[in-house]
Amino acid sequence: MNLLERTIDAIRPVDAQWIAAAERHQLELTKPPGSLGRLEEIANRCAAIRRTLTPAADRPRIVIFAADHGVCAEGVSAYPQEVTAQMVANYLRGGAAINALARSRGIELKVVDVGVFAPLGTLDGLISRRAAASTRNFCREPAMTATEMQSAIGTGIDLANAAAADGCNLLGFGEMGIGNTTSASAIAAALTGQPVERVVGHGTGIDEEGIVRKRRAIERGLALHAARLASPLGILQCVGGFEIAAMCGFCLSAAANRIPAVTDGFIATAAAALAVRLSPAAAGYLFAAHQSAEPGHAALLALVGQQPILNLGMRLGEGTGAALAIGIVQAAVASLTGMATFISAGVSNR
Amino acid sequence: MNLLERTIDAIRPVDAQWIAAAERHQLELTKPPGSLGRLEEIANRCAAIRRTLTPAADRPRIVIFAADHGVCAEGVSAYPQEVTAQMVANYLRGGAAINALARSRGIELKVVDVGVFAPLGTLDGLISRRAAASTRNFCREPAMTATEMQSAIGTGIDLANAAAADGCNLLGFGEMGIGNTTSASAIAAALTGQPVERVVGHGTGIDEEGIVRKRRAIERGLALHAARLASPLGILQCVGGFEIAAMCGFCLSAAANRIPAVTDGFIATAAAALAVRLSPAAAGYLFAAHQSAEPGHAALLALVGQQPILNLGMRLGEGTGAALAIGIVQAAVASLTGMATFISAGVSNR
Repeated sequence: MNLLERTIDAIRPVDAQWIAAAERHQLELTKPPGSLGRLEEIANRCAAIRRTLTPAADRPRIVIFAADHGVCAEGVSAYPQEVTAQMVANYLRGGAAINALARSRGIELKVVDVGVFAPLGTLDGLISRRAAASTRNFCREPAMTATEMQSAIGTGIDLANAAAADGCNLLGFGEMGIGNTTSASAIAAALTGQPVERVVGHGTGIDEEGIVRKRRAIERGLALHAARLASPLGILQCVGGFEIAAMCGFCLSAAANRIPAVTDGFIATAAAALAVRLSPAAAGYLFAAHQSAEPGHAALLALVGQQPILNLGMRLGEGTGAALAIGIVQAAVASLTGMATFISAGVSNR
Repeated sequence: MNLLERTIDAIRPVDAQWIAAAERHQLELTKPPGSLGRLEEIANRCAAIRRTLTPAADRPRIVIFAADHGVCAEGVSAYPQEVTAQMVANYLRGGAAINALARSRGIELKVVDVGVFAPLGTLDGLISRRAAASTRNFCREPAMTATEMQSAIGTGIDLANAAAADGCNLLGFGEMGIGNTTSASAIAAALTGQPVERVVGHGTGIDEEGIVRKRRAIERGLALHAARLASPLGILQCVGGFEIAAMCGFCLSAAANRIPAVTDGFIATAAAALAVRLSPAAAGYLFAAHQSAEPGHAALLALVGQQPILNLGMRLGEGTGAALAIGIVQAAVASLTGMATFISAGVSNR
């Protein structure tokens, strides 16, 4: 077995008996039954994932995977491709939205170059695991070779293994890659069978002509690679991205390591949906951070089988939604582990 | 002028020019325009409230107001009235859901007895500002006298003034009071004109027979006091509660002190809706934490003119929704104040 196959083989379904035990414990806590709503469901699943009624969520980490996309040549993005490398430098200097949000929530950040086009030089803190310098244009050829795909998936697997070794107990993942909503929309169309126009949005803010180019590029790509789109790895190789492959591996490895993992927005959820196609049991380890403004996101969330925790009209990526949702997951866990029982507090139950 | 009138007189509308200035600043930050969705709107309003583009939100405080309700005699709650006092003791010992959530978010808590029935003795940390020992049964007489109401409103005003004096820059408020969804439903019906059955829910978990008793109690109360329900203070005095009066005063005083204030769920929003009826400009200082599971909540949120930040099916009160939403408001402010600009980061704009 290769690394991906070994990772998938190590994933066990989340234990329903632990969920039931957490549900029973919730009934003893000083609150009306069910009154914390989704916080209870989130906390109970964290307990089951960690196999303890006192799960910890005090070591959160978000990993940002960055890569470039050959399909940018089709004029599908509002921003020039050089922005990918510029934003990676911005993450490492602490100036991006994800930095501000992660600081405000006490979340550790790691930044990984899985295939940014422009040379990044030696940037302090950057993890360099380049599968290649950008994917290829999927309108003309597969976005990546099988070897490049396995390399990028392996990067994600390694990063979740490293997080587990470092004692992280709550993970999030996000991405940066100019053009990557085009790739994610192609994946969404291929996975869900929905028409392309239903899963294509404005991304970072492209205009109506740009939307038409984006749609046509995806339609051409899907037509060119039609024979390869029945399998999740075929989809990933033909129309995916290196950061998407890495996030897919990260999801699977988080599940194999029994660590809750919070997806970010549209692109991260495309990766999560591929992971769940590869290993349906991985879905139980995932939490969906938010419902983004991208139209294809809801269909991908349905594939992952998770309700979004937040709905704030965000559409930035970078792990920004994951950072906010990690705060909610931590609060949910705190309510399970930090409350008195009716008996210990001397509070009358019904 | 009395204290309430002076407080209302001190409230100024949130300055639209500061909001516009914050919106312009958002466009310079390294993210696509509008990509942080509602976080941007939240942060911009915080900037306008504090009249600075670098508002701080690092000193959050939630105040819990507790009081009992004479209408409990009608059998409207799933829990016995003694639970109000027991939960106050639980808050002071740190064992309730709000304690766990506030600890996980670094939020300071204050607990105020505005009229709990059972004697609380000398509990360490309790702020004792009793308007009376419980309201009266509003099915038979007004819930409180005008003097008691002004006392309870004054308690809320004083607590927000004290928070301002202590340097708090972000406030939340919540409540405890067995039977208080009955009072809040009566307020919702009186303020919105909606039929009682549309604004009555299961509260802490009452059964179908209990719901019928609850509805009938509210209908009797509204009929008995019909002549007094045209004014917000008439509604508050006849069918309100001491904790609701205090929260109403707290909202107004937060606005007068130019501090953002996060409402909690159904009961807190009933108080906020009364405050907004007394001073429409106060609405600009309010943030609605969440959409609760209580059916009357949406109508009250509409009166306050605020979209809920979260929707997690919670129905606990205590300030638990406010605690979670305060984390989101802090993150929103952090994104406004902690990000690099396109120019400073050397990132290409569109």
